[in-house]
Amino acid sequence: MTERKRILDMVKSPADVKCLTDEELEILCRELREEMVEVTSQTGGHLASSLGAVEIIVALHSLLNCPDDKIVFDVGHQAYAHKLLTGRREAFKTLRQLDGLTGFPNPDESLYDAHPSGHASDSLSVAMGLAKARDMQGGTNNVVAVIGDSSLAGGMAFEALNHIGQDQTRMVIVLNDNGMSISKPVGALVRHLGYLRTRTEYRQTRDALQQVMESGGLLSRGLVDLGRNMKESMKQFVIPHAMIFEQLGITCTAPVDGHDVATLRQMFRIALESDGPVLVHVITQKGHGYGPSERNPEKFHGVSPFDIATGEAKKKAPSAPTYTSVFGDALVREARADERIVAITAAMKDGAGLGAFSKTYPTRFIDTGITEEHAVALASGLAAGGMKPVVAIYSTFLQRAFDQIVIDNALAGRNTVFAIDRAGIVGDDGATHTGAFDIVYMRTVPHMRVLTPSNEAELASALHTALALDGPVALRYPRGAAEGVPVPAEPELWEEGKAHTVREGTDVALLGFGRMVNTALEVADALAAEGVSARVVDMRWAKPIDADAVAQAAACKLVVTLEEGAAAGGAGEGVLDVLASLGATVPALVVGLPDEFVMQGKPDQVRARLGLDAAGVLARVKDKLASL
Amino acid sequence: MTERKRILDMVKSPADVKCLTDEELEILCRELREEMVEVTSQTGGHLASSLGAVEIIVALHSLLNCPDDKIVFDVGHQAYAHKLLTGRREAFKTLRQLDGLTGFPNPDESLYDAHPSGHASDSLSVAMGLAKARDMQGGTNNVVAVIGDSSLAGGMAFEALNHIGQDQTRMVIVLNDNGMSISKPVGALVRHLGYLRTRTEYRQTRDALQQVMESGGLLSRGLVDLGRNMKESMKQFVIPHAMIFEQLGITCTAPVDGHDVATLRQMFRIALESDGPVLVHVITQKGHGYGPSERNPEKFHGVSPFDIATGEAKKKAPSAPTYTSVFGDALVREARADERIVAITAAMKDGAGLGAFSKTYPTRFIDTGITEEHAVALASGLAAGGMKPVVAIYSTFLQRAFDQIVIDNALAGRNTVFAIDRAGIVGDDGATHTGAFDIVYMRTVPHMRVLTPSNEAELASALHTALALDGPVALRYPRGAAEGVPVPAEPELWEEGKAHTVREGTDVALLGFGRMVNTALEVADALAAEGVSARVVDMRWAKPIDADAVAQAAACKLVVTLEEGAAAGGAGEGVLDVLASLGATVPALVVGLPDEFVMQGKPDQVRARLGLDAAGVLARVKDKLASL
Repeated sequence: MTERKRILDMVKSPADVKCLTDEELEILCRELREEMVEVTSQTGGHLASSLGAVEIIVALHSLLNCPDDKIVFDVGHQAYAHKLLTGRREAFKTLRQLDGLTGFPNPDESLYDAHPSGHASDSLSVAMGLAKARDMQGGTNNVVAVIGDSSLAGGMAFEALNHIGQDQTRMVIVLNDNGMSISKPVGALVRHLGYLRTRTEYRQTRDALQQVMESGGLLSRGLVDLGRNMKESMKQFVIPHAMIFEQLGITCTAPVDGHDVATLRQMFRIALESDGPVLVHVITQKGHGYGPSERNPEKFHGVSPFDIATGEAKKKAPSAPTYTSVFGDALVREARADERIVAITAAMKDGAGLGAFSKTYPTRFIDTGITEEHAVALASGLAAGGMKPVVAIYSTFLQRAFDQIVIDNALAGRNTVFAIDRAGIVGDDGATHTGAFDIVYMRTVPHMRVLTPSNEAELASALHTALALDGPVALRYPRGAAEGVPVPAEPELWEEGKAHTVREGTDVALLGFGRMVNTALEVADALAAEGVSARVVDMRWAKPIDADAVAQAAACKLVVTLEEGAAAGGAGEGVLDVLASLGATVPALVVGLPDEFVMQGKPDQVRARLGLDAAGVLARVKDKLASL
Repeated sequence: MTERKRILDMVKSPADVKCLTDEELEILCRELREEMVEVTSQTGGHLASSLGAVEIIVALHSLLNCPDDKIVFDVGHQAYAHKLLTGRREAFKTLRQLDGLTGFPNPDESLYDAHPSGHASDSLSVAMGLAKARDMQGGTNNVVAVIGDSSLAGGMAFEALNHIGQDQTRMVIVLNDNGMSISKPVGALVRHLGYLRTRTEYRQTRDALQQVMESGGLLSRGLVDLGRNMKESMKQFVIPHAMIFEQLGITCTAPVDGHDVATLRQMFRIALESDGPVLVHVITQKGHGYGPSERNPEKFHGVSPFDIATGEAKKKAPSAPTYTSVFGDALVREARADERIVAITAAMKDGAGLGAFSKTYPTRFIDTGITEEHAVALASGLAAGGMKPVVAIYSTFLQRAFDQIVIDNALAGRNTVFAIDRAGIVGDDGATHTGAFDIVYMRTVPHMRVLTPSNEAELASALHTALALDGPVALRYPRGAAEGVPVPAEPELWEEGKAHTVREGTDVALLGFGRMVNTALEVADALAAEGVSARVVDMRWAKPIDADAVAQAAACKLVVTLEEGAAAGGAGEGVLDVLASLGATVPALVVGLPDEFVMQGKPDQVRARLGLDAAGVLARVKDKLASL
């Protein structure tokens, strides 16, 4: 964007950051922002969070010796500056593309990435593990966790804080507090973050900090006031209050301006010199330094390619509605007819299509924050109290609540509906966000039923059916544009465990689950062109599996199951078990996600790579037929 | 135990408790304890926790109108008095027996049981759900959660507290603080429990309490001093401190004597009159009121039948060592040879066989408290830091950490070993403790390997093999006595994914996973007696499955898989997929846990009931053979 030689051009590794003056570091921060805006305007990405964390990352790398020192980023979508500083500037242009740079820290990509982040609230546990491994081996390296305020609401972050405080593990926790990283307040905890202080009996760190402050030196210059004068700030800082972190045994700093790199460096330096756990409380602005994202940080949380000058998205919305929006509309319609329906999500209100519901039925909408376990157990209580909870959480994040699905809902026999969005391949976000396992972890649970609608009309009917059933029901649907099928005004009520035969055929039976039914139809067309008659069945239920439909399929020469979920333990294997129970000995082929983590890329690219597109499935079917 | 007419004899339902005087309630508490000691001395059970909670339960039932009012017990092993007061006194003699009363609250057993407890830390979420359902429907009933101090360390309890404080849900939380319910401190949190107070702006509750206290009336008489005088107690109670619960927006009481039923009633009454969340902090003694359990509450946490006079266990230890103890010994041996080995558990030190390890290698042993998520993510960090973590957690509780297994360990490619104890049928504890799903939730995860040793000698070899492999490995073994096989001094190093043929045969192939290999041998003997030649294979690996072994099996007329885990998604289905891939069309039978939650009872009784004993499997195999 500029003609002059940029500092960023000279930074080949974090070691180069350490030679820069405070002024140069400030310039570097601006350049990093320009680069991020430039690239994500082409690729899309998690821009706003990464803009907010630039100074934190620059300040850390100016002090640390990575990769010996370790930075663990929570969630990881704030780490673009880290990627740009650690030898990946050229590759950054391929962000989130097939075979390109991943959108999250990724140890397979760089030695500088300590952990494959992506799911919230795990950074403190992982960082503590790194720190304890160091201490067990007599090492001296530093371990830093960078965690946002919303991630702190996740229970496992609290579990870790409690343990770190007890253990007095030497590590630095950078609390990246932008006060808005999710769509609702995360509870009372974060409201108190401004009042942190050091603990009475606390040792060197506090003493060092106090000394510096009392001397009126560098540090006090850096302390951010935030509404009270410096004297008050200092008092706040050294007078014992009993605040949460400190009660847990973790030394805490007063809030620091997260966009003042010189102050951050001073604070981090002192924190790194401590021999116990220190939390540096940093106030940042999500989307900082780029007008459009400062004004609308939520829009730029995960953004599609956009025009830099205006911030407007380049692409028009796709013509077909998304599965997510069809679900949201269908749920509003259901809720109109049944006032027992409550919608619950865990910080995915808009992502899970609940925006309209939350406006139409605000008293029947609950967003718990990033707390999947609580959200799912809360649903159990609501169901026990006579409501009909619909828990809308992405497939990959619902993994967090597997135990609460099993014990609190299935064993308890609750009328809970799990609306599993982002089931299957998700595209740009890659492995950490792929919905690979939900069919498996749902179908193995007693009392659970699992619906796999194959298009948006079926999604509405599947939701309608799920709400009419007693006991727990899961329904799964993919990310992105649906199939373009009209959604009828009145959803159908499906018979439990009844498949739908889409096309009759005699040679090959294609048993499809979810969106793969559409792929099955393409494959059937291609097979027909070669004189092979293919039966296509929309199984609709991954559990219970329709034994009659399987028995009919067994009359063909080959049974093929298709699902966009892990093959190991998935619905296809369930079909095999039904075949075995029936005494059928027909050859079979299970098509599903292979036994590997799914790469990023446009969904169709990824499907092609994994052989889950029509061409790939067709090739496997023909190979199998040839082998018979 | 006494000749006189007892008050307990007259209590047919909780309504009868409401008519009793404070003195009579005290007598009732004594009688409840006698009854519990009497019965558990025959049946075994969770005696110590239930002894500690008698007055809490009696006081609650004297005020509440259950089942309209709801009590949600966390974990639920403290609820025996509740069972005895709610029409189940006669049935109590069948505690934990096959078809008898369950050891935990169970809505299928009684309307008075609000939730099927068993896994820690879920009560606050479930109770909040019940309370919110009430409020959404304009109801007026009361909701009370009873939670122990250790359960509070679980992250989801914190998630719920944070939400409850924000939402100001009307509910009562009884903190049953016995300060010792797990084998180690649960972190810094509970050390602060003694200093709780009401929040400055807090409304009726605080005002009511304050008024009563200032009048020197009933309540102040009841307030327990605990080391400071009454004036100090009162000051502590009304002067704003910034303590954890209160910071989260939950009104808290000063600590109350949990064995003073009159005081408890007064506290609970005031708490129930609040229009927001109130936490009543109750100090109890685990094992209270029975000498042997007061002296050794840990021993009486989960106790076998014992002699009432002495407290000594009636049964001798079984002659064969348990799988757990063999694991513990083997791990100590491995740790001697490799100082990178670290053992981690989540409040199951002795239960998971890590007592010796923790004494031999105290600096390499970590007990995180009841925090499975943190424990598993911590392991990831330790592995990343160069250690070899072995995470020993029961199968059912490890469900809590499914996401941390997937993302933090498998995706990250960590050298973490998951030692899954209590895998399969567990006996007296029933559905909530059965290890049904671990093979499923492990084998679907990319990079994971799953070992299923069939006896204690194989367990030692499986552990040795797991530690030698790169990347995440799970090994599973059952609860209770092993097979009585000598454990060799030197464990074997197994080839990855290689099964072991135990017996050659031509008609039927029995592919066994884990302890079911022994059942397969019994079945093979019985088949041989009828002239059927059975091949028996110890599969050893549920993942990767040995395709050669499966191909050899396919030469038989029937392939039978046997596992003590959920059939849906389990290893048997994995074998079916291998058969399909091989193009084999041999008839097959998958034997595993059926699609239902597993009942309690002696393990062999339960196996027989589920058709998983030799006779049951034999019958199914013969049926299948007859159908061919």
